[in-house]
Amino acid sequence: MRIQSTLSSLLLLLLYLSTNVIATHHKSVTKTVTTTINVWPKPRILTWAPPHQSTLLHPSFTITTATINHQTNTHLAAAINRYINLIKTEHHHPLVPIATNLTKNLPPLSTLTITVTNPYAPLHHGVDESYTLSIPSNASMATLTAPTAWGAMRGLETFLQLVWGTPTCVPVGVYVWDAPLFAHRGVILDTARNYYPVKDIMRTIEAMSMNKVNVFHWHITDSQSFPLVLPSEPGLADKGAYNSDMVYSPEDVRKIVEFGLDHGVRVLPEIDSPGHTGSWALAYPEIVTCADMFWFPPGSEILAAEPGTGHLNPLNPKTYQVMKNVIRDATTLFPEPFYHAGADEVVPGCWKTDPTIQNYLTNGGTLNQILETFINNTLPYIMSLNRTVVYWEDVLLSETVHVSSSILPKENVILQTWNNGHENTKRIVSSGYRAIVSSADFYYLDCGHGDFVGNNSAYDNQTGSDANNGGSWCGPFKTWQTIYNYDITFGLLEEEAKLVLGGEVALWSEQADGTVVDSRIWPRASAMAETLWSGNRDETGKKRYAEATDRLNEWRSRMVSRGIGAEPIQPLWCVRNPGMCNTLQPL
Amino acid sequence: MRIQSTLSSLLLLLLYLSTNVIATHHKSVTKTVTTTINVWPKPRILTWAPPHQSTLLHPSFTITTATINHQTNTHLAAAINRYINLIKTEHHHPLVPIATNLTKNLPPLSTLTITVTNPYAPLHHGVDESYTLSIPSNASMATLTAPTAWGAMRGLETFLQLVWGTPTCVPVGVYVWDAPLFAHRGVILDTARNYYPVKDIMRTIEAMSMNKVNVFHWHITDSQSFPLVLPSEPGLADKGAYNSDMVYSPEDVRKIVEFGLDHGVRVLPEIDSPGHTGSWALAYPEIVTCADMFWFPPGSEILAAEPGTGHLNPLNPKTYQVMKNVIRDATTLFPEPFYHAGADEVVPGCWKTDPTIQNYLTNGGTLNQILETFINNTLPYIMSLNRTVVYWEDVLLSETVHVSSSILPKENVILQTWNNGHENTKRIVSSGYRAIVSSADFYYLDCGHGDFVGNNSAYDNQTGSDANNGGSWCGPFKTWQTIYNYDITFGLLEEEAKLVLGGEVALWSEQADGTVVDSRIWPRASAMAETLWSGNRDETGKKRYAEATDRLNEWRSRMVSRGIGAEPIQPLWCVRNPGMCNTLQPL
Repeated sequence: MRIQSTLSSLLLLLLYLSTNVIATHHKSVTKTVTTTINVWPKPRILTWAPPHQSTLLHPSFTITTATINHQTNTHLAAAINRYINLIKTEHHHPLVPIATNLTKNLPPLSTLTITVTNPYAPLHHGVDESYTLSIPSNASMATLTAPTAWGAMRGLETFLQLVWGTPTCVPVGVYVWDAPLFAHRGVILDTARNYYPVKDIMRTIEAMSMNKVNVFHWHITDSQSFPLVLPSEPGLADKGAYNSDMVYSPEDVRKIVEFGLDHGVRVLPEIDSPGHTGSWALAYPEIVTCADMFWFPPGSEILAAEPGTGHLNPLNPKTYQVMKNVIRDATTLFPEPFYHAGADEVVPGCWKTDPTIQNYLTNGGTLNQILETFINNTLPYIMSLNRTVVYWEDVLLSETVHVSSSILPKENVILQTWNNGHENTKRIVSSGYRAIVSSADFYYLDCGHGDFVGNNSAYDNQTGSDANNGGSWCGPFKTWQTIYNYDITFGLLEEEAKLVLGGEVALWSEQADGTVVDSRIWPRASAMAETLWSGNRDETGKKRYAEATDRLNEWRSRMVSRGIGAEPIQPLWCVRNPGMCNTLQPL
Repeated sequence: MRIQSTLSSLLLLLLYLSTNVIATHHKSVTKTVTTTINVWPKPRILTWAPPHQSTLLHPSFTITTATINHQTNTHLAAAINRYINLIKTEHHHPLVPIATNLTKNLPPLSTLTITVTNPYAPLHHGVDESYTLSIPSNASMATLTAPTAWGAMRGLETFLQLVWGTPTCVPVGVYVWDAPLFAHRGVILDTARNYYPVKDIMRTIEAMSMNKVNVFHWHITDSQSFPLVLPSEPGLADKGAYNSDMVYSPEDVRKIVEFGLDHGVRVLPEIDSPGHTGSWALAYPEIVTCADMFWFPPGSEILAAEPGTGHLNPLNPKTYQVMKNVIRDATTLFPEPFYHAGADEVVPGCWKTDPTIQNYLTNGGTLNQILETFINNTLPYIMSLNRTVVYWEDVLLSETVHVSSSILPKENVILQTWNNGHENTKRIVSSGYRAIVSSADFYYLDCGHGDFVGNNSAYDNQTGSDANNGGSWCGPFKTWQTIYNYDITFGLLEEEAKLVLGGEVALWSEQADGTVVDSRIWPRASAMAETLWSGNRDETGKKRYAEATDRLNEWRSRMVSRGIGAEPIQPLWCVRNPGMCNTLQPL
């Protein structure tokens, strides 16, 4: 006991010295300290009882599990190993030092004990992600309890964010209760317009887990390339990928799915069809209409929403042979119970280039019937594989081509909205469908970056800056504030709001790839992460974007130190001088 | 001889095999090959005589110098060493394979001989950067001739960009004559709003040299921080830097200046004053007005153009003691004959907070006289140190505070324009001043990224996307096309146009730092680089932005492989399918 106590004193002396070092390091321009410990997304309840005491992390700090059946979910075990390492080695130094009382008589924290009541609950939509974390002030043990392994992972991330410094300090007298407001919190990455190496996808998933974002919506294929290697249809990637080394093999997918599970992140695949399938024509030209044509022929109908033409032909039986192989393989590769089937941006002009479709239309058939044929030949098959199917809203709401809601069973189909802001969300949920919100006006991370289409004379303008948001169809750039403030259930009735599962920010990759993925996604996706986890309002109901600015600066800095190249949102000066960079004078 | 010939055949066999490997690698979706060899910026004259033959680089390829006095500029020697290594090891694989005739009877290229007629011409504004490069088809030696070492460096970069593949191929029958249209081609980096590590600055200079951009305009200090360690005024950085490890020591500066010389890049320092000097107040509160005040007080005059207040007080004699130490030290650290003295955005409200200035104004003095006092007490001193002084245009053109042109001698002062596009360029040169163009409407790389100012309710908007370009004062985002198409001498008379020295793109760093520097600057600065080097028009006088798109895709890819994290401008699909991503159908 005496040795313990001496060791403890020694550690506190070291802490005192190092704290002074920190103070000197931040020196002159630092005007403030904080008694807030920054956790992003902000927990629903986090209290740090005055007098804001801290203790040291014991050098042999461990995390133990105390589940009833003495078994541990292997994914939770992997997470625990990862967090033990991070907790001991991160030594985060906040941009604004934390004011804390170092009390010699506090024991160092030696254990975090995790109790999970239902350790084998799978990582499915709606799984309970709540947790309770308690770090008492007079014991050497903290406790984390959660109904599921996934809630425990959220709590571990919170615990990691609570510790800081060299040696590692831990606040005591801390109580956290936490649970997400929305069950579905996602990031869409498009790996078809440009390819992303597996390591970039894994780093993105890692950053998602730091932000408690739980769905990686992987828009894998599109007209530009088909990088997914499918065992039953190897020709699609063999011919449709950009290069033989720009593919995702079954082994890559397995690795990514496992990595996701270890991080509490679902990997939701999207194989977009019947539009956005030009790349399929390299293997199966006979099932793709308008493939390889110029997208915007002068004097005739447009053939695609953007360069890269090609739609699957719903009237060719061969289409469904291929589709069923694709769907079966994709559902085998991705155990996730949701399957995203795309169905956005069907462009009539593309189908109309095909003689059989022309003939069908001439004989009184309609475009809507053609799309219904496609849905009727694929949706039941996907459902038969025990999947809930997500479609882009277009399948029901498109003015040019859509199907009847009678063929989209509400219990099996979810619609993802991207047009017209709240209006389309309302249309979806008021029709009784569940919705995932990805409003392009708020949640599209690629917007405001100009246009990628070539030979555009609009940019040859000597008289001022570009009109039309610099050529970006969905400009301007969606700032973190725009994303943070968006209320995805705005204008909905209470019952309607319950049908909103959550939201997803999207990085479409016409002008993005692995070189820029971190800074395009982070910290803007962190803004969505907090709003969907604990909301964007303070206790009084007021939007908390001002207060969130300082915390997001801190959090971005911590993400960078953890290897995520998130972009800065303000000069460091603003962080050091809270309120001084505001629009309105601080009170 | 026989061994040589056998070796040569063996190499050609290897080339044949590897070329086939390349062909397989790019396989199915590649529809095209090119007989253009991409050099960026495009040389003024580059011919590759049909039948577009190539040979191999000899394994013991060397670069020799044949200057008259048999001595070599040490910076050129460093560049030669760097380029020999790059030429032998880069093995660039173009996105679109190059169609070339491999002829067995061509000797491998064993030597590039450089002749520099004036090897000691210093790297000053206007130095001759022209070069001639010849790679004959029937000899084993290529020649590069240039009047100066700096022209030779440009030629070396061109030579490097001409070679490709594994083993390294060299086109033969190539002739290049090249020289820049504008002598001043720069990038501004602001290291005061956020700090950039030295390695990021060096990588930026390296990328500049790849693009034949020759001026690194270093906006070192500002109100937010003062990271430059000055031997005579150590307190400025000691107190004004963000951290003791977020500074540029004299040794760092020396290293950066030398690195610049080795890359043919001038390092032009800017110490902005009298505005943008809030950080000086940490060491010298007595010489700074309105320091540390809220920038936008309700109901009274604004105190700064953005958060971070503070102007040097021109009526305090102490100001000039400090200023002269700063100027003397900065000119000692930076041998560059241009010195940028700032003088932008003087905000009257800031000066008016000072009692002595209030008194001066009450007694009939004017704001213009106060600024003239400042200029008259600093400009002659800078000139006495043999410097040409660059000021922001505000010093003469600001509507609120400016000086008379009578105190700004035209032979010693250059004005840098950033407001009102061509209009202010015209005002500057029609007044007889030389101009550097950095129009915010075209050349500001930070625009279109929202606003960094906090607590802004404009972003809390549920009804659609943000107004006002997403809050960016200079939005929208300046695309590479916007930059490429800008004609910096538009609307000028021939004599006026001669006073336009060139242009600089600017990365102001409120929302940038080392995590994003590469993608914010590149390849957009490459667009300026080509326009200022060889123009933005083809031989017929037509803007060449369409053709430049494919070349910029290639060049961006090559920059990435050389370690510069430039952002993608299109899906890879567009590169592989030339013209198919155009706005207008290809002919």
